[in-house]
Amino acid sequence: MSAPKKVVLAYSGGLDTSIILKWLQTEYGCEVVTFTADLGQGEELEPARKKAEMLGIKPENIYIEDIREEFVRDFVFPMFRANAVYEGLYLLGTSIARPLISKRLIEIAEETGADAVAHGATGKGNDQVRFELAAYALNPDIKVIAPWREWDLTSRTKLLEFAEAHQIPIAKDKRGEAPFSVDANLLHTSSEGKVLEDPAVEAPDYVYQRTVHPEDAPNEPEYIEIGFEKGDPVSINGVAMSPATLLTELNEYGRKHGIGRLDLVEGRFVGMKSRGIYETPGGTILLEAHRGIESITMDRGAMHLKDELMPKYAELIYNGFWYSPEREMLQAAIDKSQEHVTGTVRVKLYKGLASTVGRWSDHSLYSEEHVTFEEDAGAYDQKDAAGFIKLNALRLRLLAMRNRRTAK
Amino acid sequence: MSAPKKVVLAYSGGLDTSIILKWLQTEYGCEVVTFTADLGQGEELEPARKKAEMLGIKPENIYIEDIREEFVRDFVFPMFRANAVYEGLYLLGTSIARPLISKRLIEIAEETGADAVAHGATGKGNDQVRFELAAYALNPDIKVIAPWREWDLTSRTKLLEFAEAHQIPIAKDKRGEAPFSVDANLLHTSSEGKVLEDPAVEAPDYVYQRTVHPEDAPNEPEYIEIGFEKGDPVSINGVAMSPATLLTELNEYGRKHGIGRLDLVEGRFVGMKSRGIYETPGGTILLEAHRGIESITMDRGAMHLKDELMPKYAELIYNGFWYSPEREMLQAAIDKSQEHVTGTVRVKLYKGLASTVGRWSDHSLYSEEHVTFEEDAGAYDQKDAAGFIKLNALRLRLLAMRNRRTAK
Amino acid sequence: MSAPKKVVLAYSGGLDTSIILKWLQTEYGCEVVTFTADLGQGEELEPARKKAEMLGIKPENIYIEDIREEFVRDFVFPMFRANAVYEGLYLLGTSIARPLISKRLIEIAEETGADAVAHGATGKGNDQVRFELAAYALNPDIKVIAPWREWDLTSRTKLLEFAEAHQIPIAKDKRGEAPFSVDANLLHTSSEGKVLEDPAVEAPDYVYQRTVHPEDAPNEPEYIEIGFEKGDPVSINGVAMSPATLLTELNEYGRKHGIGRLDLVEGRFVGMKSRGIYETPGGTILLEAHRGIESITMDRGAMHLKDELMPKYAELIYNGFWYSPEREMLQAAIDKSQEHVTGTVRVKLYKGLASTVGRWSDHSLYSEEHVTFEEDAGAYDQKDAAGFIKLNALRLRLLAMRNRRTAK
Amino acid sequence: MSAPKKVVLAYSGGLDTSIILKWLQTEYGCEVVTFTADLGQGEELEPARKKAEMLGIKPENIYIEDIREEFVRDFVFPMFRANAVYEGLYLLGTSIARPLISKRLIEIAEETGADAVAHGATGKGNDQVRFELAAYALNPDIKVIAPWREWDLTSRTKLLEFAEAHQIPIAKDKRGEAPFSVDANLLHTSSEGKVLEDPAVEAPDYVYQRTVHPEDAPNEPEYIEIGFEKGDPVSINGVAMSPATLLTELNEYGRKHGIGRLDLVEGRFVGMKSRGIYETPGGTILLEAHRGIESITMDRGAMHLKDELMPKYAELIYNGFWYSPEREMLQAAIDKSQEHVTGTVRVKLYKGLASTVGRWSDHSLYSEEHVTFEEDAGAYDQKDAAGFIKLNALRLRLLAMRNRRTAK
Repeated sequence: MSAPKKVVLAYSGGLDTSIILKWLQTEYGCEVVTFTADLGQGEELEPARKKAEMLGIKPENIYIEDIREEFVRDFVFPMFRANAVYEGLYLLGTSIARPLISKRLIEIAEETGADAVAHGATGKGNDQVRFELAAYALNPDIKVIAPWREWDLTSRTKLLEFAEAHQIPIAKDKRGEAPFSVDANLLHTSSEGKVLEDPAVEAPDYVYQRTVHPEDAPNEPEYIEIGFEKGDPVSINGVAMSPATLLTELNEYGRKHGIGRLDLVEGRFVGMKSRGIYETPGGTILLEAHRGIESITMDRGAMHLKDELMPKYAELIYNGFWYSPEREMLQAAIDKSQEHVTGTVRVKLYKGLASTVGRWSDHSLYSEEHVTFEEDAGAYDQKDAAGFIKLNALRLRLLAMRNRRTAK
Repeated sequence: MSAPKKVVLAYSGGLDTSIILKWLQTEYGCEVVTFTADLGQGEELEPARKKAEMLGIKPENIYIEDIREEFVRDFVFPMFRANAVYEGLYLLGTSIARPLISKRLIEIAEETGADAVAHGATGKGNDQVRFELAAYALNPDIKVIAPWREWDLTSRTKLLEFAEAHQIPIAKDKRGEAPFSVDANLLHTSSEGKVLEDPAVEAPDYVYQRTVHPEDAPNEPEYIEIGFEKGDPVSINGVAMSPATLLTELNEYGRKHGIGRLDLVEGRFVGMKSRGIYETPGGTILLEAHRGIESITMDRGAMHLKDELMPKYAELIYNGFWYSPEREMLQAAIDKSQEHVTGTVRVKLYKGLASTVGRWSDHSLYSEEHVTFEEDAGAYDQKDAAGFIKLNALRLRLLAMRNRRTAK
Repeated sequence: MSAPKKVVLAYSGGLDTSIILKWLQTEYGCEVVTFTADLGQGEELEPARKKAEMLGIKPENIYIEDIREEFVRDFVFPMFRANAVYEGLYLLGTSIARPLISKRLIEIAEETGADAVAHGATGKGNDQVRFELAAYALNPDIKVIAPWREWDLTSRTKLLEFAEAHQIPIAKDKRGEAPFSVDANLLHTSSEGKVLEDPAVEAPDYVYQRTVHPEDAPNEPEYIEIGFEKGDPVSINGVAMSPATLLTELNEYGRKHGIGRLDLVEGRFVGMKSRGIYETPGGTILLEAHRGIESITMDRGAMHLKDELMPKYAELIYNGFWYSPEREMLQAAIDKSQEHVTGTVRVKLYKGLASTVGRWSDHSLYSEEHVTFEEDAGAYDQKDAAGFIKLNALRLRLLAMRNRRTAK
Repeated sequence: MSAPKKVVLAYSGGLDTSIILKWLQTEYGCEVVTFTADLGQGEELEPARKKAEMLGIKPENIYIEDIREEFVRDFVFPMFRANAVYEGLYLLGTSIARPLISKRLIEIAEETGADAVAHGATGKGNDQVRFELAAYALNPDIKVIAPWREWDLTSRTKLLEFAEAHQIPIAKDKRGEAPFSVDANLLHTSSEGKVLEDPAVEAPDYVYQRTVHPEDAPNEPEYIEIGFEKGDPVSINGVAMSPATLLTELNEYGRKHGIGRLDLVEGRFVGMKSRGIYETPGGTILLEAHRGIESITMDRGAMHLKDELMPKYAELIYNGFWYSPEREMLQAAIDKSQEHVTGTVRVKLYKGLASTVGRWSDHSLYSEEHVTFEEDAGAYDQKDAAGFIKLNALRLRLLAMRNRRTAK
C-alpha cells in the first residue's frame, strides 16, 4: 500500500483519536479530515471541533454531524425487524453502528478527495473488521489505516509521551488508565476489559452507566403501549415519534426500570472469546414488544422461517458484513415478512423485566372464533384433525414397520 | 378402523378422563387399562387408583407410576441442551411431556395385549397430535382413540349428564366450568382458554399458580451456583442432585422469585393461533444458566450452528415429532456439541429475572491471555488481523468494482 | 360443508374429468363451469370445448385459455432462479403448474359467481394438496370438491359404467387401463404408477415420451448459447425470445439429445414414497446454464446462502405452499440475489448430458488479475493469507489446547 | 515465530517440493523430515525416497506411506454420506484429501520431535488454508511454514536457478512451464490455471487425464450394481471390496464411460473466483448411487433435513474446517441418518451419464401397498387427505381473510 495523501479519520475528540490524528500527520505527512458523529453516545460534539482545529485541521476538513435519525431508521430498526440476537442474547448495539460510520467516512472521502480512511479500533476486536469490511464494500479502492495495528505506541506510557511531545491536551482523568473500555450509542453502552476480564467475577456496580440497578428501580410497575407499523415502532402511548426520538424515549423507560443489562461471554470473529457488559434499555423493550406484535400478525410459517434465518443474520452483522449481498438477501426476506406487522403492544416494565401483557391489531391473525373452547359455530371441524394426524403419522408408521422388520 | 378390544387410557383421575373411561366401556364395550403418571404435576395419584377401581377397572389394569426422573433425564434435559424455545419464547413444557406419556401407553399396551390407546386431548390442540404421532411412531399398528373428536358430548351439560347417568362422581367445584384450562408437570404449568382468550387483555393474577408475583418476590436478590456436566445440570450450590430433584429445587427458587412467567400468542400446528400463560420457573433459570456455561465452554462455530438448528428442533418438539428421525439427527448433533459443556454458573435471582453473573470451568475456552487489553506476550499478533480483513473483504471489493462498472 | 351451487372444474376434456363433470351435475345438481388450460401439455384444446358443450355446459361457462407465457414467466422462471430441486434431483415440473391452475380456477369462480372449485386429483397424491392449498390461500371461503376422495366410483369398471350411463363418449383406447399415469406441461412430463410401481425394475422404454433415448441421440454434440438477464433466460444463440417460446425451444434441444430423464423415488407430502419417471428436457439444460451464469456473476456469500435456502424452497413448492408467506419471503431473498445474474452461457449437449463449457458476462466477478498463476501486479498480497489463516485458526487452536488440557 | 528446528514437509518428490526441501535447509538451517503419501494420485513413491536421500534427508526421516484405505474409509465415504457438493456441483476431491495429509504431518512431527510442518501450497489458493487449519486444530503449538508465501523465488526463472544452484535435478519436461496445474488423488483430478484461466473458453481436450471423452466412450451402456451398508458402498456386482479397492473400481467404470467431468467457476475461501476442471469418475457414480439407495431407505424428514445441512457441511470441508466441532456435529447428524441406508442400486453408465435405474433393500420404506393406483385393501384412507389439507390450509385461510380485511 502506497502512503495515503488525505485521510478521513473517525474522530471522537478524545485522547486516543487525537493521538491518532497527530500520528497520521506525522507518520504519513498526510492531510487529515475529521468526522465526528452524534450517534447518541451522549457526548457533546463541539469540543471535538475545537480540539480538531487546535490540532491543525482546516475548518473545511472538520465534519460534525448528528446522524441519530439515520442510525435508528436505516440500521437499528431494520435489524430489530429480524429480532436479531447474537449467540442467543446480544442485541448487537456496537455492531450495528459501525457500518453507518464507515458509510459516512467513505462518503466524506469521496467529497473531499481523500484516498484513505482511518479508525481507532484495536487489532484484537471486531470493530476493526466491521469498519474495514464496510469501507471496502463501499469503495474497493479505499485505503484503510488502523494505527493500533501499525504503530509502536504499545503502552499507556508511550501514548502519553507521544501526546505530550505533540501538545495534545490530556484530561486529568485520562492520565491513569480507565478501569474498563466503553462504547456507546443510542442503542446501547458496552463495557469490557480490565476489571471485567475474569468472567467468573460479577461485574462491579459502577460499570453500569445507562440503567439503574433493578434493586433501585421503582417498586411499582409501569405500563406502556408501543405502536408498530410494518415492523417498526412508530409511537409510544399513542404519541407518534421519529425513530431516534422513540428510541430515546424507550431508553428512558428502560433506564428507569433497570431493563436491558447483559453480562455475556461471546465469541469474537477474530477467534477468541471476550466478556462484555451490555446495557440496551430501549432495545430490550423493543425486542420484547416486536415479538409481541409479530405474535398476532405474523403467520407461523413466516415466523419459523424468520427464526431459522435470524442467527445467520445476526452473525453477519456481528462479523461486519452489513454491506454484503447475503445480508441484503436476508433483509429482503425479513422486510417482506413485516408487511402486516402493524398494531399495538402493551408492555409491563418492572425491576429489570419488560413483559408483553397484551397486544391488538387490525392485522391480527388470531381468531377467537377458531381457537375458542366454546362452541365455534363450525369454524373448525375437529374431525379434520384425525386425517391431519393420520397423514403426518404415515411416514413414521412406515419407519416403525421397517425398523421392526429389520430388527428381527 | 375396527373396534378396539382393549384400550390403555391416559387417565388423570379427573372428571373428564373418568367420563372418557366410561365412554370407552360403553361405546366400544372394550376392556380399559388406565395409566396414571406422576410427571410432577403436583397431584396425588392414589385417588386415581380408587376412582379407577370404582369405575370397574381390574386392579391389574391400573398402572400408576412416578416417571419424574425419566421425564427430566431423558426428555427435559436433552431438550435444554438445545436451548430450545418455540417462536422465540416458549420453553415447550407441555410439548416435551407428551412423548413420554405415549411411550408408556404403548409399552403398557404391549404388556397387556391392548390393541388401542386413548387420550383426553381435544381436536383443536397440539396435544392430540403429539400423543398420536408418538404412539404411531412407536407402534405402527396401534389404534388411537381420541374421544373428544368422536363423541357427541359437545357441551358441558351433556358431559355432566353422561357422568351422572354413569355414576361418575362429580366434585363440587367441577360443576361449573373452570375459568381456564390447565396443564402441569415438573417443567411447567400452562393456562389457556376462557378468560384468557382475548390476547389484548392482561391475564388476571389468579391465573398464575406456580410462581409468586414478581412484585411479591423478595426485595433482596439471591445467588445460586449451578454445576453442569456435558450440558446437563448436576448440582446446585455444590450439592449433587438427581435430575428430577434438581429441577424441583430450581422450581422452588424460581417460584420464590417470580421467575419464568410468559404470556404468549403462539401458532399451533393445527393452524390457528392461541394464547397461553406459561410458568416455567426452574426451566427459565436453567436456560439462562445453560447459555452461561456454553458461553465459555463451547466453540463459536459449534454454537452458531446449534443456534441455527434450534428453531427447527423446537418446532419438531412442539409439533409432536419427538420420535422422528430428523429430531434424532438434530439430537445427535446437539449432544455432540455438549461434550465439554461442563462447569459452574452463578445466577442472580431477583423479581422475575434470572441473570448469569459469573461462570467458570476447567473446560473453558476463554483465554484471558488472548483477549487482554494488556500486554499479551505474543499470544496474539494484531498484524494478523490486517490479512484476515483483507481476504474477508476481497469478495466485497470485487463486488463493489463490478457494481461500479455495471452502473455506468 | 353445504352443497355447492356453482363449481369451476379444472377440465382436461379427457374421460376422467368428463366423468367428474357429469358427477358434479348429478351429485350436487350444481352448475358447472369448465376451465381448460394450455400449459404446454401438447394437446389441442378445442375438442375440450366441444365435449363440454356436449355435456351440457353453457358456452359462457366454458373457459379455454393459453396460459403458457404466464406459466413460464411467473412460475417456472422464478423457481429456476432458486436452482430448485426436490430431494436432490426432481425439477418440480408438476408441482409448479398447480398453483397457476388454482389461481385461474379461483379467478373464474369470482368472475362467474361460483362458490366452489373442483379438480381431478386423487386422494393419495400431492396434487390434491397443491390445488387445494392454493385455492384456500387465494379465497378462504371457497369450497373445494375432490370427487376422487368422495365418490364410490372406486374401480375402472364402475367409472366406465358411469360414463356409459351418462352418455360420456369413451375413446377406444381408454377402455382398457393405461399402463401408467401421465402428467405433462411445458416444463415436463411425469409418468407413474402401474408398470412403474416396482422401483427395483428399470422403466420400460415406452414410458419416455418427451425425449429420445440417449443411445438414439445424435453422435455429434451440439453447442448452444443461452443469454440471461437478472436470472432469467432471455435468448438462445443470440435470438431473444419470450419465456414460453424459449422454454419450448430448449425442450426441443433437450428432446433431440435425450436430456432430462430422471427415474426417482420421492417422499410425498401425504406420507408415502412413490416412484416417478420425469422428463424435463429444457429445464435440465436451463438449470445447468443458470448455475453456469451464477458461477461468474454471483458472490460466494450470496450463493451459499441461496444453496442453504433452496431445499426449503423446493419443499414448499413440492408440498403446495406456493402462496405462502414463507415462500414469498424466500422468493424475495432469491430475487434480490439475481440482480446481476446477467450474461451468457455456452452449453454442450450430448447423449443425455448438458454441460456448461463457457460463460461470460459484463457483470462477471471473476478476476483473472486476482486468480492468475502469473505475476499479478499487486492485485493480491499472498502474505495476507497468513493472517487470514492465523485468525481463522485461533478458535481451533484454543479448542485443541482445551481438549489437550482436559484429556489429562 | 521463532525459527523452526525440525520440519516435516509434505513431499511429492517433484521439482517444487524438492526446491522447498532445500530452501528449508538453507533458509532455516533446520532438519527436514519428508512425508510422501500414496493417496491414489497414480505416481510411484520410491523415486521420492531416492530423491529425498539425494537431497540429504536421513533414512529415518523419510516417511513413505500408502494411506489410500484410510483416505477413502475415513474421509471420502463419510463425506459422501452427506451427498456433499460445493456450490451445487463440485465433489470436493481436493478439499477432502488435505486434512488427512495434515493429520499425518502432525503425527510424524510428534513422533520425530519436529516443531514445524511445511507444505507446497501457494498463497492464493484454498489448500494452504486447509493444510494449516487442520494442522493447528490437531496441534495448537505447531509452526507452519508455507514457503510460497515467504520466499522470493517469485518466478519460474528464479526457481530453476535455485534448483541448479543446489544440485536439484530438473526433469527435462519441467524446464518449461506446465500449461496448467494439476492435483490428483483416488477421488479426483483437478486442473486449473494458465490455459484454463479464461472461463469463457472451453477447456482443451488434453486437460482431461482421468476419463475418456464421452464421445469416445462405448456405444453400449453398461450396468453395475452397487451394494451399500449404512450409507457406505461395500460391493460392486455382488463382490465385496475394501473402500479403496471399491473406489478404484468405480473410477475404472467412470473412466471408461467418460463420467464425472466438471468445468466449474467456484468461489474460493480466500475471496476470488477460480475456474477448475474436475474429473471425479468413481465419485460421480457413487453420488448418484448413494442418492438412489437413500431414496428408498431414508425417511423424508431425515432427507430434507440432511439436504438443508449439506451446503454448510460442504462449505466447511471446502474451507478447510474438517477438524472443527461444527463439522463433527453435522457428521454426527448425518451418520445417524445412515443407519438404515443399506441395499443395492442399479446404475446405468453411458457416455458421461450415470443414472440410477433400479434400487432395492430389506430396509426399504417404499410401500407398494400404500402407493398403488390399485385397490389398496385399506392401507390408506383417501378421506384422511381432506382433513390433512384442511388443517394445513387453515393458516393460509386465516391469512387470506386478514389480507382481504386490511386491503379494504
